Amino acid sequence: MAVAIADLVAQARDGDHRSVARLISMVENAAPQLREVMAALAPHTGHAAIVGLTGSPGVGKSTTTAALVKAYRADGRRVAVLAVDPSSPFSGGALLGDRIRMQEHATDDGVYIRSMGSRGHLGGLSWATPQALRVLDAAGCDIVLVETVGVGQAEVEIASLADTTVVLLAPGMGDAIQVAKAGILEIADLYVVNKADRDGVEVTTRDLRQMMSLGEKRGPDDWSPPILKTVASRGEGIDEVVTAIDKHRNWLTESGMLDARRRVRAADEIEALALTTLRRRMNKSRDGALLDELAGRVVAGTTDPYAAADELSAAMTALA
Amino acid sequence: MAVAIADLVAQARDGDHRSVARLISMVENAAPQLREVMAALAPHTGHAAIVGLTGSPGVGKSTTTAALVKAYRADGRRVAVLAVDPSSPFSGGALLGDRIRMQEHATDDGVYIRSMGSRGHLGGLSWATPQALRVLDAAGCDIVLVETVGVGQAEVEIASLADTTVVLLAPGMGDAIQVAKAGILEIADLYVVNKADRDGVEVTTRDLRQMMSLGEKRGPDDWSPPILKTVASRGEGIDEVVTAIDKHRNWLTESGMLDARRRVRAADEIEALALTTLRRRMNKSRDGALLDELAGRVVAGTTDPYAAADELSAAMTALA
Repeated sequence: MAVAIADLVAQARDGDHRSVARLISMVENAAPQLREVMAALAPHTGHAAIVGLTGSPGVGKSTTTAALVKAYRADGRRVAVLAVDPSSPFSGGALLGDRIRMQEHATDDGVYIRSMGSRGHLGGLSWATPQALRVLDAAGCDIVLVETVGVGQAEVEIASLADTTVVLLAPGMGDAIQVAKAGILEIADLYVVNKADRDGVEVTTRDLRQMMSLGEKRGPDDWSPPILKTVASRGEGIDEVVTAIDKHRNWLTESGMLDARRRVRAADEIEALALTTLRRRMNKSRDGALLDELAGRVVAGTTDPYAAADELSAAMTALA
Repeated sequence: MAVAIADLVAQARDGDHRSVARLISMVENAAPQLREVMAALAPHTGHAAIVGLTGSPGVGKSTTTAALVKAYRADGRRVAVLAVDPSSPFSGGALLGDRIRMQEHATDDGVYIRSMGSRGHLGGLSWATPQALRVLDAAGCDIVLVETVGVGQAEVEIASLADTTVVLLAPGMGDAIQVAKAGILEIADLYVVNKADRDGVEVTTRDLRQMMSLGEKRGPDDWSPPILKTVASRGEGIDEVVTAIDKHRNWLTESGMLDARRRVRAADEIEALALTTLRRRMNKSRDGALLDELAGRVVAGTTDPYAAADELSAAMTALA
């Protein structure tokens, strides 16, 4: 069926969930109309606050997300939740439980919930997630909560997409150490120690402060990530998290960092798309054959990767 | 100081650890002589078996690595351990404990141990780790064990670099589920359930078999990943792991998969280097300014990322 992109975008902007869903599916499937979609969305982007939620499995990420959604809705704000699984084709299954927990919002027009696999996309999160965020932003969401499945690289990547990155921890998981290992200290704008009714919350908080003090020096005008405590399952401490996220956003706006971060993100996105085009060109027809041949020579040890890369770029530029 | 690359490579091939260390440091620091280094190494590569070791923190990765090193040494094979931390600048600290555990091999000339951060490298693991592997391969290692810190994306990436990928689990960590979530089912050539003296080992094994049965169908000539049990801290089951890794390598060789995998890897490496060159060109002088300007327009919503990417590629190709 032919879809009038302009209609679809207009309906999405009117808050029609099905249209939003179709636009995100176009992103996921790398639909040929994506260029047109992004062009139609462009004038309507820039409003939403993108909040990344990250943390090891078991810290209560989904419960916290659900509690935040509830708080934002109580405040009359439109919210989207984008659960990104950068590694697994099983995302549907793995995230099913999370979706069910969100069901109390299932019939609320002010909440849009979507899980999305980004695996198989060239460069992982590099262009699919930002484009999905553009859809949700243009659709008029005030807040987009981006939740990642998995830890490590994915967390660091999500931080590069978010205005505000919230790192969730729970007591007794040795998480402060994991935070240091995963390089999360540099990406967190806000720490939330969830399950704060459990033993060990003070140890986790203390470890975290210690780790933070080992990190980079901050200037007096820099943002200093607060450490908040929640019991998300009972909604405790959630309003404080909402306030801290708002406060961080105000700081971003006033310091000029919001614009700076968004420019960096846009530059990354443009670059990723340009590289995708170039890469596609590399794989095309005679260059695909050339790459095969070069790979064979590198494996045989008759050439080295640099010399092979030079040959490839030269052939590619000649093709342009 | 000027280094004669040919001498350095010759010394590394003679088993001189300091020369190997200097070559890998050149990779880490993206030294200008890297091109020359890779050209000098090329004829001497292709011998080493690259074995990736991956698993969540706490499964006993370092202990297993140490036990494997011991077994390979007892067999008279030259072994290298490359511990890659793709996310953290703290790698030195985080891996220190692991290094200490390996100290019994510190004075053995047949063992080379190195930890390496790959963060900050353009594209993460994309070119630094393969180049370090080339150094170790050309230096005459029979086996290179590549251990990653962190889970998720890094594990999937490491699998794309290894001939054989060993996924480590431990009982009672809900690991089978994590394996499914992290997309590891598709990358494992061998499962090792470590700490097999603990409760829950049968549950983990059963869960794993169940997960595997949900995976893709295998043909009769395909490799079916075995599940082995170890108590690495006591060296139990390690010889069986060595045997299984050798068996997998024989299968790779006989089926032609070894060559096929290596060609894919070489193609990836060539492509990554070619893209790095192109990206560098993008960031250069007037293109850097252009990218900034385009990013500003995307943030303002006056253009979309695709149109911006087109402008960028056009300018870049014109520059070539």
